[in-house]
Amino acid sequence: MTTFNAVGVVTLTTDLGHKGPYVATMKGVMLARFPQMRIIDLTHDILVHWPSEAGFWLRRSYRYFPKGTVHIAVVDPAGRAGREVLAIVHDGHCFVVPDNGLLGQLDPEIATVHRFDPRRGPSLGLPAPSATFHGRDIFAPLGADLAAGKLRPEMVGPRIHELVPSWLEEAQASDREVRGAVVTTDNFGNLITNIDAGLMERFSAPRVEITGKRIPIRTTYAEAGPGEYLALVNAFGVLEIARAEKSAAKGLGIERGAIVTVRERED
Amino acid sequence: MTTFNAVGVVTLTTDLGHKGPYVATMKGVMLARFPQMRIIDLTHDILVHWPSEAGFWLRRSYRYFPKGTVHIAVVDPAGRAGREVLAIVHDGHCFVVPDNGLLGQLDPEIATVHRFDPRRGPSLGLPAPSATFHGRDIFAPLGADLAAGKLRPEMVGPRIHELVPSWLEEAQASDREVRGAVVTTDNFGNLITNIDAGLMERFSAPRVEITGKRIPIRTTYAEAGPGEYLALVNAFGVLEIARAEKSAAKGLGIERGAIVTVRERED
Amino acid sequence: MTTFNAVGVVTLTTDLGHKGPYVATMKGVMLARFPQMRIIDLTHDILVHWPSEAGFWLRRSYRYFPKGTVHIAVVDPAGRAGREVLAIVHDGHCFVVPDNGLLGQLDPEIATVHRFDPRRGPSLGLPAPSATFHGRDIFAPLGADLAAGKLRPEMVGPRIHELVPSWLEEAQASDREVRGAVVTTDNFGNLITNIDAGLMERFSAPRVEITGKRIPIRTTYAEAGPGEYLALVNAFGVLEIARAEKSAAKGLGIERGAIVTVRERED
Repeated sequence: MTTFNAVGVVTLTTDLGHKGPYVATMKGVMLARFPQMRIIDLTHDILVHWPSEAGFWLRRSYRYFPKGTVHIAVVDPAGRAGREVLAIVHDGHCFVVPDNGLLGQLDPEIATVHRFDPRRGPSLGLPAPSATFHGRDIFAPLGADLAAGKLRPEMVGPRIHELVPSWLEEAQASDREVRGAVVTTDNFGNLITNIDAGLMERFSAPRVEITGKRIPIRTTYAEAGPGEYLALVNAFGVLEIARAEKSAAKGLGIERGAIVTVRERED
Repeated sequence: MTTFNAVGVVTLTTDLGHKGPYVATMKGVMLARFPQMRIIDLTHDILVHWPSEAGFWLRRSYRYFPKGTVHIAVVDPAGRAGREVLAIVHDGHCFVVPDNGLLGQLDPEIATVHRFDPRRGPSLGLPAPSATFHGRDIFAPLGADLAAGKLRPEMVGPRIHELVPSWLEEAQASDREVRGAVVTTDNFGNLITNIDAGLMERFSAPRVEITGKRIPIRTTYAEAGPGEYLALVNAFGVLEIARAEKSAAKGLGIERGAIVTVRERED
Repeated sequence: MTTFNAVGVVTLTTDLGHKGPYVATMKGVMLARFPQMRIIDLTHDILVHWPSEAGFWLRRSYRYFPKGTVHIAVVDPAGRAGREVLAIVHDGHCFVVPDNGLLGQLDPEIATVHRFDPRRGPSLGLPAPSATFHGRDIFAPLGADLAAGKLRPEMVGPRIHELVPSWLEEAQASDREVRGAVVTTDNFGNLITNIDAGLMERFSAPRVEITGKRIPIRTTYAEAGPGEYLALVNAFGVLEIARAEKSAAKGLGIERGAIVTVRERED
């Protein structure tokens, strides 16, 4: 069984960007409920309507925060009307996320998943939610109360045992090949894939390929000459494709979705 | 009479963006004066030299922060030399803003408006201000001291009863028509108007028009098919024009200023 | 001798931008080590791989933060493999920066410079660092412990007396001419130079020239007509070239590096 002991810290992950008071009003709502709250912006530059990127980064970064942190993520897929709000306890952290695949790769028999019951809203002191900004009206107050230790995850609603699956397939691995995809880019135009370092251990001399292009594997960015492409296992434990002193994203014309394969070098 | 009891929270609204140490030095100045201060960035991506957007968002978002919050906004219109600094108490919040129309729609007989007297600067412990960054040199220290409860709004200077009017007209409403304008856009390219939801209650079946285009009214974004335009009352209580899964701003080529009308549907 | 007394405040300056959890995990690491920490983002929009801009802004903005603040800056030049981590005490502040020229203009006989000895990492409670993200794995925990007062700068490693020099030359001044360069731009497209105000005092009627264009000197932006170029000493004490109501950077096609000269006006 996994337990959660709140420490008053919240992280926020959204695709709301930096224009307008959207994120700020989420923080205002939280501060009004719990003035001692510490709030860290994970990122608000998730590719819009792409929950998979939010889940990808959350799963790889939550462990750098203190145990007992509440992680709120709000990213709606395009064209999705309703959505349930989940409070998931996993590895000593609590995740307040929509049930839209964002954390769909978690196993609900290992993590503990409770689904918010909107009928409990009034008794939990939630406002009547707006039609379009549940981040501010539901996620923020639930997250604040969870972070304050005033609300236990099991109090938000019934435990459930099934999650909407992730949109993003896990990387597929056979003896001969590992096959994954570009999930997103970073500020330098590096391409971040969903291929975990562990999957590459099966190869003695792995070779990376993307859009028909072969990419040599290095340990750091500095091992390639200016303009050369390289692949490396990055600081979050996944395969990344970079271009020394340049943007691989621009060079290859890729932002997300492209297939990446790793095989044994044959030569 | 409206009262203000400081709770140690400040919000910041500027057009300074994220490059350079401009906003950060405002925060440094505040922390040096009041180490326990909580500072929330409302947004720093106000359209440059457009105080109207700052005032628009402040008026619609301040109530999500705790009563007793100080809201600092610094946006200079292009080509404006001098400007007065105001401390306005309204609805239990305090607004430290330039007298350039940013909050020009407030009624100074309902709100209490004090104009900072620069001759009081030294006795209030303010530095000699630079010629070009009053945000750091005047607004930040005044805001910090107000948020700390060390300074009362009436101590900054004389009460005044007239404000520089807003650049942005309020939406005009007759029995037949409501006429407003696009104030700004959000991260998704939705067009945010100054037409309050209440103005639309006069119509049984309202129809929205912008640049000659008729837009159907919906409740949520998900009620329109991909690429279709829709109008809805957003989570800040104003009419918004969106395009499902796309950017209405790009689709219509509009960022701000375009006229939006609402009429009874005739068919 | 310069002393440093920690006050629990950290500033962060990077070229990591706002995508992904890079900066956030630095903050998570710091909060986990010192929950009461105050963290201020100086900027994360340093021009990528350009440490000179980070050092330029740090040197001009640190004094707006409380004495006892720790300033962490992480900007790698393109193609640089290894790098040492420094803890520099200067004017009552502590700077945790790479030895790559970022603060190379400091005099190590006036500032006190200690170089982190990686062999001390385990005894200081640092994790085994990743190959590519020392900001999170070395700079953040060192900065947190320094800000908490748990670690003294002299405990990170030996004192050194030589720094990797800055990439950016200081402005050169003779009786007839001052010659500097554009370091960066701000959110308005103003061009920020490395010419300190003091260097201009030798001229009774200084005239500024950039890319063959003569620019008149003003005190504030409002003294020029729409579209006119002007030069002024900005709020950080350096010469800046602006264009009233427009972007000088776009108008002149310059982002950084262009030579700027100041001479006595001859007419």
